[in-house]
Amino acid sequence: MLNKRGFASDNNSGVHPAVLDAIAEVNHGHAIAYGGDKYTMLAAEKIKYLFGWDVDVYFVFTGTGANVLGLDAVTNSFHSIICAETAHIQQDECGAPEKFTGAKLLPVSTPDGKLTSDLITKHLYGFGFEHHSQPKVISISQATEMGTIYTPAEIKALATHAHSYKMYLHVDGARLFNASASLNIGLKEMITDTGVDVLSFGGTKNGMMYGEAVVFFSKELSENFKYRRKQGMQLASKMRFIAAQFNAMLTNELWLKNASHANKMAQLLATEVSKIPKIKITQKVQINAVFAIIPSDVIPQLQKEYFFYEWDKHTSEVRWMTSWDTTQEDIIGFVDLLREKLS
Amino acid sequence: MLNKRGFASDNNSGVHPAVLDAIAEVNHGHAIAYGGDKYTMLAAEKIKYLFGWDVDVYFVFTGTGANVLGLDAVTNSFHSIICAETAHIQQDECGAPEKFTGAKLLPVSTPDGKLTSDLITKHLYGFGFEHHSQPKVISISQATEMGTIYTPAEIKALATHAHSYKMYLHVDGARLFNASASLNIGLKEMITDTGVDVLSFGGTKNGMMYGEAVVFFSKELSENFKYRRKQGMQLASKMRFIAAQFNAMLTNELWLKNASHANKMAQLLATEVSKIPKIKITQKVQINAVFAIIPSDVIPQLQKEYFFYEWDKHTSEVRWMTSWDTTQEDIIGFVDLLREKLS
Amino acid sequence: MLNKRGFASDNNSGVHPAVLDAIAEVNHGHAIAYGGDKYTMLAAEKIKYLFGWDVDVYFVFTGTGANVLGLDAVTNSFHSIICAETAHIQQDECGAPEKFTGAKLLPVSTPDGKLTSDLITKHLYGFGFEHHSQPKVISISQATEMGTIYTPAEIKALATHAHSYKMYLHVDGARLFNASASLNIGLKEMITDTGVDVLSFGGTKNGMMYGEAVVFFSKELSENFKYRRKQGMQLASKMRFIAAQFNAMLTNELWLKNASHANKMAQLLATEVSKIPKIKITQKVQINAVFAIIPSDVIPQLQKEYFFYEWDKHTSEVRWMTSWDTTQEDIIGFVDLLREKLS
Amino acid sequence: MLNKRGFASDNNSGVHPAVLDAIAEVNHGHAIAYGGDKYTMLAAEKIKYLFGWDVDVYFVFTGTGANVLGLDAVTNSFHSIICAETAHIQQDECGAPEKFTGAKLLPVSTPDGKLTSDLITKHLYGFGFEHHSQPKVISISQATEMGTIYTPAEIKALATHAHSYKMYLHVDGARLFNASASLNIGLKEMITDTGVDVLSFGGTKNGMMYGEAVVFFSKELSENFKYRRKQGMQLASKMRFIAAQFNAMLTNELWLKNASHANKMAQLLATEVSKIPKIKITQKVQINAVFAIIPSDVIPQLQKEYFFYEWDKHTSEVRWMTSWDTTQEDIIGFVDLLREKLS
Repeated sequence: MLNKRGFASDNNSGVHPAVLDAIAEVNHGHAIAYGGDKYTMLAAEKIKYLFGWDVDVYFVFTGTGANVLGLDAVTNSFHSIICAETAHIQQDECGAPEKFTGAKLLPVSTPDGKLTSDLITKHLYGFGFEHHSQPKVISISQATEMGTIYTPAEIKALATHAHSYKMYLHVDGARLFNASASLNIGLKEMITDTGVDVLSFGGTKNGMMYGEAVVFFSKELSENFKYRRKQGMQLASKMRFIAAQFNAMLTNELWLKNASHANKMAQLLATEVSKIPKIKITQKVQINAVFAIIPSDVIPQLQKEYFFYEWDKHTSEVRWMTSWDTTQEDIIGFVDLLREKLS
Repeated sequence: MLNKRGFASDNNSGVHPAVLDAIAEVNHGHAIAYGGDKYTMLAAEKIKYLFGWDVDVYFVFTGTGANVLGLDAVTNSFHSIICAETAHIQQDECGAPEKFTGAKLLPVSTPDGKLTSDLITKHLYGFGFEHHSQPKVISISQATEMGTIYTPAEIKALATHAHSYKMYLHVDGARLFNASASLNIGLKEMITDTGVDVLSFGGTKNGMMYGEAVVFFSKELSENFKYRRKQGMQLASKMRFIAAQFNAMLTNELWLKNASHANKMAQLLATEVSKIPKIKITQKVQINAVFAIIPSDVIPQLQKEYFFYEWDKHTSEVRWMTSWDTTQEDIIGFVDLLREKLS
Repeated sequence: MLNKRGFASDNNSGVHPAVLDAIAEVNHGHAIAYGGDKYTMLAAEKIKYLFGWDVDVYFVFTGTGANVLGLDAVTNSFHSIICAETAHIQQDECGAPEKFTGAKLLPVSTPDGKLTSDLITKHLYGFGFEHHSQPKVISISQATEMGTIYTPAEIKALATHAHSYKMYLHVDGARLFNASASLNIGLKEMITDTGVDVLSFGGTKNGMMYGEAVVFFSKELSENFKYRRKQGMQLASKMRFIAAQFNAMLTNELWLKNASHANKMAQLLATEVSKIPKIKITQKVQINAVFAIIPSDVIPQLQKEYFFYEWDKHTSEVRWMTSWDTTQEDIIGFVDLLREKLS
Repeated sequence: MLNKRGFASDNNSGVHPAVLDAIAEVNHGHAIAYGGDKYTMLAAEKIKYLFGWDVDVYFVFTGTGANVLGLDAVTNSFHSIICAETAHIQQDECGAPEKFTGAKLLPVSTPDGKLTSDLITKHLYGFGFEHHSQPKVISISQATEMGTIYTPAEIKALATHAHSYKMYLHVDGARLFNASASLNIGLKEMITDTGVDVLSFGGTKNGMMYGEAVVFFSKELSENFKYRRKQGMQLASKMRFIAAQFNAMLTNELWLKNASHANKMAQLLATEVSKIPKIKITQKVQINAVFAIIPSDVIPQLQKEYFFYEWDKHTSEVRWMTSWDTTQEDIIGFVDLLREKLS
C-alpha cells in the first residue's frame, strides 16, 4: 500500500484538495513577485479580518521561520526569551533562535508544556543589570507541544504579566487552528483580545503544503519586518501560491473543519485506548495529539504498520498525532492492532 | 485582463502544468516529513545523475537560502567571499550572507557581471594575517545577473585559481538551466568537471512553484549541512512537494524545454528591438534577459501595459526578462508598442 | 577614607605591586604590537611549562572574552553547550556566548554550582537529529561561582564522559589559581592530566590589572584561533603589558601566594562568622568566597561600611569575597561589626 | 640595544610615564568594578567637557571594539555601512563588524583614504527596497589610515549628507588626537559641532597602555549601549585603570603634547626624505604618518635597523609611523641610513 497514514506527525499528511485547487486556480499569467500580488493582499486581509483588522501580516515558509523572525522583531541580542523546556524553539529548531537573534533562551520545566506566571518568576530578575541578558519575551505554544492548550484567561494573565515587566508575549501557533477548534473560540478572542504581541500563525500542519504567517498586533513591532524576512531567507518569490493556500484555508471555514476533525480523531483514539488496561494516557487530550505510556516491547511491532514516534525512551511514552486526513478506520485499525499486540 | 504577462522577472511567471501535476500526484496518504520520503530520494538521485553521481543534494526553499547556506558550509566567520558587485548575494539578499555566515563580502566591479582571475587578484592578499578577513570563496553566478554566461573553460580557470589559494568556487545557479540550454552543454560538463565546489541549483525561475537545491561536490563540505539547513530555517516539513517539482523538471527534459524557450524569446526580443534605432542593447543576450538603454520618457508608458524594471535610472537602462511562458505574441505585442511609443 | 576594602568582589581589588612593577619594567622603547614581542613569548612559555608544554596559549582581555572565544573554537552554531545554571557564561555574560557562537546554552540546576555526569545526562540526546542543537561541550567553572571546587577525579570523570560522546570539556578558570591553591595541586595535574580540552585561564581576579589567557590542549582546536581572537575584538595591540603581568604572576609563585592568602582570609571569615548564631553558611568554603544567610535587616547596615552583594534577595543569602589584598584586620573589623549589628 | 624604536606603528610604542604614574596612583584599596568608581566618573566628565557636555561616554578595550560596538549601536543587521576601501573596519578587523552587527560593509575606492559625498553616491540607493541592505551609516576615519585628515567643513558636509538620508555619521578616531593637533582645532569644533553621531575615541596609539572610548552625541543612540558593551566582551572589570589613563591624557593637555610631537616628527621625516631624489612621498603628511615610494631593494636593509611596514609590495610604497616617543635623533639616524643605502 502506498503512503499509509500513521500517527507520526501532522506534517506527514498531504495537502487538502481544496488547497491544491486554490493553488491551481491562481496559476495563470504573471503576478508581481515577492507578495506584490492581489492574492497575497487578499489573504492578508482575510487574516486581518480574523484577528480584528488592526494587525500586520507577513507570510513565510516554515514554522521555525515564523518563530525566529517574530522573535527577532521583538528582541535585541542582549535580551532573553523565556519558554517551556518542551517548546519547539528550545527543542526542535537546532538553535535557529539563538543563531539568528543572538538572544538567550531560558527554558522552564513544566509538566504539561504550559507556562504560568509562577513558573516564569525564577527568570524575572537582573533587569537593568548589564551583566545579565535582559528578559524581554515570554514565548508560549498554543497548542503546546504536549497537546495541551491555554484558556484565553491564561493567555491574558501571561500577557499582562509580560507587559508589567515591559516584556512581550509571543505565541507559537503552529497548531493554533487546533486550539481554536478545541476551545470553540475565535482567533480574535483567543489572541488579539488577550494581549498577545506577536504570533506564528501555522498553516502547514492543518492541510497546507507550506506557508505560515507572522502576525503582529502593533505596528511598532512590525516596522522593519520586511527586511528581517528577506534577510532571514523567508521571502517567497512566487508568493501568490502561499497566499492561495491561506485563502482556501480561510474560505468556508476549511481551517475549522480540518482542525476539528483532527481533534475529534484524537478524542476517539484516546477514548478507545483508555479502555485498554496496559495503557496510560499521560497528558490531557485537547487537540490532535495523544501521549501515552505503553509497554515498550509492542512499540516496534506497532510502528511497522502505523508509524509514530517514541517520545521518551526511558518511560516508553509515545506520541500519536492525528491529522486532517485521519479516518475513523485508521483509528479503529490501529486500536485493534494495539489490542492484539498487547493481548 | 487577468495577470497579463510582462517582462519584469521570471519570478512573476507561474508554475508549469507538468510541475503542478507532479505535485498533485504525490498528494496522497502520509509520507515521512523533512525529506525522509521516497520522492525526495528520487529527486536527489535524479540530480546526482545529472551531475555525475558523486555529489550531495539538499533541498531548500529559496535561492537566497541556497546561496547563504551553501556559503555557510564552506566558510568560517573570519573568511571573506569575493563576488561581482552585481551579484545577487551582494545586491539582493538584504545582507543575509553576512548575517548568517558572519563573513565579509568583497565586491568586484565588472562590466558584464562576470569575474575573471585578473579582476579577483586585488582581493587576494593578507593570507595568514590575523587582522584581515581571510579570502576563502570566489562566488560567481551562472548565468550572471546581467544575463551573461561563463564558458566551461572560464569556470575551470576560476576554480583552478580558487583552489591554488585553498579557496572554494561557489556558483549561484538560480538560472543554471538557462545557462546550460544556452551553452548546449550538460550540467556535469559545466559544473562538476570544471571543479565547482558548491552550487545553488535553481528551480523556481524555470517553472517551479518554490524549491531550490544546494549541491556539494565533496562529502567533506556537506558533512554538517543538515544542521545548517535546519538552523537556517530552510528545512521543509512536507518536502515531498519540493521533490515532486524537481522530479517533473527532470523528466523528459522539461527543464531544457522551459529554459530553451525562455532563452529563445529573449533572442527574438533582442533581434526585434535591435532594429529600432533609439534602442541600444547593453549586454550580450545569452539567456532570458535583455538589457537595453531606451529613451526614458517611454518607460512609464510601456510599463502600463507590460511591466518590467528600470535597471539604472541614471542611464535609463532597462531589464527585460522572458520566461518559460512568454509567447511570441507577447514579444511582438511589446515590440509593436515600443515602436509606436518611440515614433 | 579612600577606597576602603570590602567583600564585594575580587574584581574590586587593585593590582599587586609586583605586577605593576613588571608593567613598568617592560615600558621602554618599541616592541612589536599584537603579541609579536619577546615578553609575550616568555609569558606563553611560562604558561606552557605550567601545563606540561604541549598546549597553545592566547592572551585576551577579559574572562568573558576568554570563555566566549574558547567556546567558539570548539563549536559550530548548531551545537549546544551544557553548563551549570549558576555558570558565569549563563548568568553574567549578557548572552555573549550565544551572540558570538550562535550555539545554545543548556543550563543545569545544581545545588553547589558543580556538574556531574548524572546531572548532565538529561541533555545528552538528539545526537544526529537535525532538529536538535547537537550537544558538543560541557562547560564547568573551576572554582565554581558558588565557591566550590572539583577534585581532579571529578574533572576527569566529566572529561571522560564528554569525550565518550565526542564532546569537549571547557573550564572557566577565572579563579583557577584559587582552586589550585586550595587543592594544593599543580595546574598540569588538575587540568592537563584530567583531559580538559580548552581553558579560560584567569589573571585579573588574582591581582592583575587586566588580561586572561585561553589555553588549548590540542593543536587542532586552536588552529584558527588567532582569527577568532581578532574578530572577537580581544587582540591587544600593546600586548607586552598583558604578558608582563602574567610573567610577574608566574614568578616566585606570586599567583600561589595571592590565591592562598585570599583563600585563607575566606577561611578566617567563615570560622569567625560560623560562631555567630544567626548566620548560616550555605556553601562549602573552598576558595575565597563565603556564602551565608544572614538576617536581612542588617545587610544594608553592613554594606555602608563594607560593601558586598546580596546573592539572593528571597533568602537573604549574601556573598562575601576575599581578595589577595584582604587583611586580617578587614576580617576582624567586619566580623565585629556583624556581631554588633546582630546583637 | 633593547627595544629599539622604529617606524612600524604607533602601537609599537610604550606608555607615557605620566600615564603609568596615573595608573599607580589609583592603585590602592578597592573600587567598584565595571566602572562604578569615581575615577571612571571623572574621566567620563573630562571627555564630556571636551566635547561640549551633552554626550555619552563608554570605555572599552580596543579600537576594533570601539568601532564595532559604536556601529552596532546605530545599525540593525539589515543595514549597510559605507566606508573607504582603506578603512580599518574594512581591512583590519578580520570581519568583526560583519560578525557582530550582521550588517553589510560597502567599501568605496578613494585615493587618499577620504570619503566625499560624491564618492558615496554610488551606494545610496535601494531605500525601502526589502531586497537591498539599507544604507544607514557613513563611517570615516579621522585621521584616515593614509595619514590624511578631514577639515571640519568636510566632516560637516558628510554629516549633513548622511542625515539627509536618515543615516548616521560614524568616526573612527583611533588617531583623533593627531588630527586635532594637526588642525589646531578643538574636539568639540571638529566632532560635536559638525554633526557626528558616534565616535571611536582612541587613546592607545597616543601613549596609553590600552583603552578607548565610544562617544555618543545623542542619548537615543546610547540607550542600550551598556548591554552591547558587555555582550561585546568589552566591559573592563577593573575599569579604574582605563579611566586613570584617560585622566592623565586629559590633564595638562598631555594628549596634545604627545600628538603634536608625533606629528612634528613626521613633518621632520618628510622634510628630510623629500630631499632625497629617489624617494617619492605619496600622501599629504598631515599627522604622524609618512607614505613614500622607495627603491624596493633597500627596504629589507632598512628594516634590519628600523622596523617599518611595506604598504604595497607592487609599488614598493612604505609607511613610516612616528610616535609620541620618537626622537629627533631617531629621524636623523634613519634618514642618514636611508641616504647611505641609496647612495
